[in-house]
Order: sequence, then structure tokens, then C-alpha cells
Amino acid sequence: MKSAKSYIQEHKDRFIQELIDLLKIPSISADSAYKDDVIKTAQAIKNSLENAGCDVVEICETPGYPIVYGEKMIDPNLPTVLVYGHYDVQPPDPLDLWDSPPFEPVIKATELHPDGAIFARGSCDDKGQMYMHVKAMEYMTQTDQLPCNVKFMIEGEEEVGSESLGWFVERNQQKLANDIILISDTGMIANDVPSITTGLRGLSYVEVEVTGPNRDLHSGLYGGAVANPINILTKMIASLHDENNHITIPGFYDKVEELSQSERDAMAEAPFSLEAYQNALNIESVYGEAGYTTNERNSIRPTLDVNGIWGGYTGEGAKTVIASKAYAKISMRLVPNQEWTEITELFQNHFESIAPAGVEVKVTPHHGGQAYVTPIDTIGYQAASKAYESTFGKTPIPQRSGGSIPIVALFEKELGSKTILMGFGLDSDAIHSPNEHYGIWNYLKGIETIPQFYHHFVELSRES
Amino acid sequence: MKSAKSYIQEHKDRFIQELIDLLKIPSISADSAYKDDVIKTAQAIKNSLENAGCDVVEICETPGYPIVYGEKMIDPNLPTVLVYGHYDVQPPDPLDLWDSPPFEPVIKATELHPDGAIFARGSCDDKGQMYMHVKAMEYMTQTDQLPCNVKFMIEGEEEVGSESLGWFVERNQQKLANDIILISDTGMIANDVPSITTGLRGLSYVEVEVTGPNRDLHSGLYGGAVANPINILTKMIASLHDENNHITIPGFYDKVEELSQSERDAMAEAPFSLEAYQNALNIESVYGEAGYTTNERNSIRPTLDVNGIWGGYTGEGAKTVIASKAYAKISMRLVPNQEWTEITELFQNHFESIAPAGVEVKVTPHHGGQAYVTPIDTIGYQAASKAYESTFGKTPIPQRSGGSIPIVALFEKELGSKTILMGFGLDSDAIHSPNEHYGIWNYLKGIETIPQFYHHFVELSRES
Repeated sequence: MKSAKSYIQEHKDRFIQELIDLLKIPSISADSAYKDDVIKTAQAIKNSLENAGCDVVEICETPGYPIVYGEKMIDPNLPTVLVYGHYDVQPPDPLDLWDSPPFEPVIKATELHPDGAIFARGSCDDKGQMYMHVKAMEYMTQTDQLPCNVKFMIEGEEEVGSESLGWFVERNQQKLANDIILISDTGMIANDVPSITTGLRGLSYVEVEVTGPNRDLHSGLYGGAVANPINILTKMIASLHDENNHITIPGFYDKVEELSQSERDAMAEAPFSLEAYQNALNIESVYGEAGYTTNERNSIRPTLDVNGIWGGYTGEGAKTVIASKAYAKISMRLVPNQEWTEITELFQNHFESIAPAGVEVKVTPHHGGQAYVTPIDTIGYQAASKAYESTFGKTPIPQRSGGSIPIVALFEKELGSKTILMGFGLDSDAIHSPNEHYGIWNYLKGIETIPQFYHHFVELSRES
Repeated sequence: MKSAKSYIQEHKDRFIQELIDLLKIPSISADSAYKDDVIKTAQAIKNSLENAGCDVVEICETPGYPIVYGEKMIDPNLPTVLVYGHYDVQPPDPLDLWDSPPFEPVIKATELHPDGAIFARGSCDDKGQMYMHVKAMEYMTQTDQLPCNVKFMIEGEEEVGSESLGWFVERNQQKLANDIILISDTGMIANDVPSITTGLRGLSYVEVEVTGPNRDLHSGLYGGAVANPINILTKMIASLHDENNHITIPGFYDKVEELSQSERDAMAEAPFSLEAYQNALNIESVYGEAGYTTNERNSIRPTLDVNGIWGGYTGEGAKTVIASKAYAKISMRLVPNQEWTEITELFQNHFESIAPAGVEVKVTPHHGGQAYVTPIDTIGYQAASKAYESTFGKTPIPQRSGGSIPIVALFEKELGSKTILMGFGLDSDAIHSPNEHYGIWNYLKGIETIPQFYHHFVELSRES
């Protein structure tokens, strides 16, 4: 019987080429100009699931972009694994910071990826990591080693809030029934330090608009006499953090769970070099909430970041104008127990309340989701841990991530099942950034490790 | 002998058409994409000065855009008036707020301009007001009523700091020698309340860049752990004003001249309706430095306004990113005795000093200029006052403007002559804004009033 290692060795060039073909389609869900490409990508996923051995594959229409569903049911008495992933990608801008075009994949070796990495938008988040599951499925079906039932649910709106997914899951609980949900949309500490993500932050994403005078004004004739929406917006945003970088929105921290010292000590054991971290970002110093370490600040603590700001004249040269409007996109990362809709409301009320006379403020919620924590004493986590052990030769470290996959909490609520986050990317893979890439080694290692999860999960299910 | 009134009546359709043709050329000096149009406009000005009766007209090359010089010297023993204006215009954006294309002039009646106004970028600032002088010249030469020598100096970089003008004036003091400089690039209070601008604010215009991490980052993985350049920029900008809207830059106010109560009382006599002001801008309340009225805030007090800000994701939808860089364009309006280069340096040093560890700050000065005050006891001012009296039937009110014409201070320094600011625009003409316009009545009234200035200036010169 063929091992995953040898099967991958035999087919790896094709595995890489298939991913490259997928990465060439600019499936940018945030920009409606790419609608056709997003649809085209869904079709490509459908074909790949059929080729991988799924018996039933459907493109399920939703109010937004379609969800690709596939399944192979071999025995109702065996456990069912539901694989989730997304085929949409982040917008690639700023384009001028890419060394090669974001949708023309190239393979280059890097210090952390000596075997080469695929540079392209979506290579790691999430096309590359999602496609590992498709190829693992191919291996298991081609070699008659699929040990349980499998369902795939690949969506196209993850980067814009997964709204249609919620709609879809609520309406298809029977179809999606499963024993465990498997997702690769996170990272691990290093190629020689495997880790499993056990916590995710929640998210509340809003857009704000500050309106002053009814038209752009000459800054000489009106400067100093009317509220300048840009100055006001900077004042309002600045006031959202105090001198300790605590967020000043009343009630914001009310439901935040404080970790015990022992939990914080356990976190602190994960290998981390502040110097390496700062060097990688070329910053002289980190920055954040007083009283917490860098790893705590981006995992167990809620945050508020401006993701975009614009207003007035931003072109070449100088224009002495007072803009009529100024805008910002602001996202808050949340921790367990913070209700994202409640936080969105707290933000909205507070932001409107601090607007001075002379301007009008509009707050538009974009999307959000709940934080999530995976218990490590479940057979799902144990199966994942054994899978890494068998392919990495090391026990993976449980790790909280600062990122958000809002639908994980949704799955638990609607489908009653836990999610295991088996991520094979690295923080340095620059997801959401120019020059996003994914290591060839990581891609193939994921394909090798995933079948081990299936194997151990079925074993542990039988025992339990 | 033909009066200006009847000459204008006879030729006004042509006067209007000639201005419309000039306004059709997008001479945007701030955007190099319009270089050819700026040059083309200089050529059009040259032709118009020749047609108006100048004996010598030259397009003078400079390190930047050319300066159009024209002259008619009738007698070395007579006074010489130097007319200054500019043929470049502000960028028209935001384009979507224009009711008609900025470079396709249309004539529409408005509440304040019942006889119609020309809507186009540059209609008031400064093509329309500059061209009044060309047509006044035509009238005087065509009717043999030119009472003195005239020189024209029309530049193409006023909206971007007049750098080449300084270069040109320093090198042509003999050529530009004059007894009085006449400029129409300001406004008056109302069509039935003529006023003469006796003060201008200085300007320091800078661009700032805040750099955090060396690349855009995923706001989930890094949010809260690194300095977000946009958050930092808002904090830094917000800190430039205190709770009384005083500017916090150390030394900023050191040389600001405080007006006496009697001077402030005199200013307060100018007709002003706060309610009408707020209604015109559709704002509930004005906003500004504590302890000063609206008219004081935008004339005798220095100010700091953000003219543009940008960073991160500003497209459609949501992108959870921490930008590597954030930018802002900031201008400070200055009052007499504030040295603009010194203020620029104070800003630069202060702004760099308040940058927290974890970001790097770059301040790039764009341009600037000195403030200026015209004494009203000169024959130049008296001649202008009499000119308005003869055509408006009212004595004009001396008024300080919040705007800046940096080169006025330069003229005094390099050419040793005073400048008279005879402006015929209204604050509501939306210069630097969408839907800029200039009243037909104001345009023709200017052409009628300017020859009166020549007449009275020569009279008063003879007497003195």
C-alpha cells in the first residue's frame, strides 16, 4: 500500500502546477470588478473536488458568492469530517510593493523556504492551504485509504465577512452534519516547531465618515474658522486609545476574560525572539497595550486598528483645501466572551458621542464574528497532535492566534461540532500583504499530514 | 471719448467668450500630466496681451513653468503699474462633486449672481480676475486713455508655491521696476459691500510620512502588537492642537502680532452674519481657536489644517491590514512676523520629536510664503479706494484675508514696491472647490474699475 510520502513524491509537480493554475485567477471578493473571476474560481474548485474522488459536488448559490460543496460518504456508521476553506482572496494592493505580479505565481527560494515558495496572492491564504485538503483527499481515494466520510465546504466570501456562509449553514444543518470540522487557514510557529491554533480572536469591522462643511473649502479663507473633518477624525481616532494603549470605548473590556498567571506562563513557553520579530518587520521597538507581552497583545487581548484612512487632496503636489468629508476603516479584534454585535454597537454609540458640534458622523458596520477557543482534551485535538507527531516527529504546541475566522464560532453554534485548526503557513508568509507566499515544503507537508489526522481521528473515535 | 461702461457694453459678449476659451484649457500646475496644457495657456496669455496693446510680450522660460511678461511704456516720467496674476489653476478633484465638467465652462444664474456666473475651474482664481486686467488694458489702449506705463507678469505656478517666480523676480529687478503692483486674486465682502484686502496670511505647506513595519501586515496576526502607522499619525496630528484649539508646536506663536482691541473692534464692524455663514456651509456650529471670532480666526490668527490624509486600504469593502505607511498633507496659515521657513522648521522638529519608538517619520516641506499687510495711508490704497467709489458708489472696507499670496512679500523685498489687492470675487465663488464660479457682473465691474485705479493713481502721484 502506497505511503502518502511516496504518492506525493510521484505527483508533486502536478500538485504544484494545479495550485499555480488556481492562483492565476484573481478571486478578489472585496472588489465587485472581479465578480467573474470569483465565480470562475468556484467552478475550478468544483472540478478539483470531482477529480479528487468526491461522489457529489455542487456549486450552491447564495445571496452572495456561491459555496462549493462536495462529499464522499462511505459508511454512515463511520465518523464524518467536514473540511472548510475559502477560494476568495484579499485585494492585492498596494500593487507597487509586489516584486512580481500578484496573480502571476512564481517560485522563489527564501531564507525560511530553501526548497522554494510560491509567490502569489492567496498562495497561503487560503487557496494553498485549502488545496492541501483536496490533494490529501485525492491520495486517500486513489490509494483506497479513506477511513471515514468526508464533506467539503469551500466558500468565496471569507475575506469580506462570510455573510452568505452563515446564511448557508443555517439552512443546511442536515447536509453539513459532521463529527469534526477541519480547517487550514492559520499558521504554525516554524517548520521545525509545529503548532496547532487553539484560539482565534473575534472581529468587528466598521467604516466611519465625518462630514463638515457641505463642500471642499479654500483652507486660506476658511482655515481655523470651521471644523476640518480630517483634523476632527484624527482627534476622534486618537482618543480611542489612552496613554497605556487601553481602548477607551466605555464597556469595551467588560466581558474580556483575564487569563490566569499559569495560562500566561504556559503561553510564554512558546519559542519567541523579540529581536527576530523586530528585525523581520524592520522596527526598532514593538508597541501596544501596557502590561502585556507581544504574544499576549496579539492573541489574548482585544485591539483596535485603523485599516485605512482617506480624505482631502492625496494627489501629487499641494492643494490648500479643507475637505468636506473624511473616512476611515476601523477593525477591532475581540477575545472570547466579547459579543461582536455588542462591541460594534458600543463603538458606534461612543464614536457618535465624541463628535464635536460642526461635524456629522456616520458609522457603518461592515462585518464581524465571535472569538473561539478549542479545548485540547478532545479527540479532535489529540488526532491532530498525533498527525503532526507522525510527520514532523514533534508534538505540536497549542497556540492562540490573533487572527479571526468568525465562522468557527458559527459552526459550533449551528452544527454543534468543534473545529480543529491545522495551519501549515508561517507568520512571515505575508498573507494580506504584498509578496504573499507559501512554502512548497509546507504545502507538501500539509498534504502528508492531513491523512494522518483522518487515520487517528477514526482510531480515537472507535476507542472512545 | 468713450467711457469704460459703454466700451464694455459694446464688447462684453466677446470679453466673456475670450475668458471661456481660456478656461477650457486645464492648466493644472500641481499635476505634471497637464504640463502641455499649462504651456498652451501661457501662449494664449501672450496672444491676449499683444491684442490688448502691449508693445513687448515675451514668454520667459524659468526652471519651472514660463512667466508671461508684457509691457507698454509710454513715458519714462510717468508712473509704472505692474500687474501680477497667474494662469495656472487648482486641481479640480473631487470631480464627482462638480455639477458640470470643470473645464467645460457653463453660465448659470445663482442667488448671489442673478446676471449669471461662469462655472469652471479657474473662473475666479485666477484666470477670470487676471483677465479683467487684460481687457481693462485693451479698453485704455483702444480709447487712448492709458495714463501711465504698464507691465504685466502672469505666472503659471501660483497654486504650487510660485517657486520660479521668486527665481525670475530676483533676476529681473530692472525689467520689473514699478511704482505700484496691482493684483486681483482676492475677494470682496459682497457685490454691494466692496472691500479691499489689506492683509494676507503666510503659508507653510508640508507633507508627512509615517513608516511602521516594512510591509503591510495582517491586522489579526499583528494587531495590537506593533505600532500602526495610521493610528500613530492620527495621534500625532491630534496632538498638534490643545483643548482650546491652540497649536501646540513650541515657539509657533512667539512672533505672532496681537492686534489691539481697537483694531479688533474695527474688524468687527465689517458686516458678518454667523447664521448666514453657517447656513452657507450647512454646519451647525463654527469651530476654532478659543477667544477669537470667526473673522479673526481666519484672518489675524495662524492655523494648522490637514489638507489630505491617506493610508492603508481605501477601496471598496473591507481589508484587515495594518499599513506599512501613512501620509498627510498639512498646511499652516501664518500671520505677519511669522517667518515661514522658521515655522516649517519648528513643525519639522516638533513632529519628528513626538514620533513614538516603532515608527519613522519623514517631513517634506512643499512650499510657503510670508504674510503681508498693506498700509491704507498710501496713494496706492487711496487710488484703489477712489476707483471703487467711482464705480460702486461706496467707499470700500479695508479687510484682512485668510488666504495667502506668498509672492506679495517677495515683491516688496525684491522690487521695493507695495501691492494693492483689488479683488472682485466672493467667498461663495467656491475657489479651490467643486463648482468654482465667477459672476459675470463682477467680471465686467472689475474691467470697469481697474482703469479708474490707473487714473487716480497717476493723479495722486502727480500731486504727491
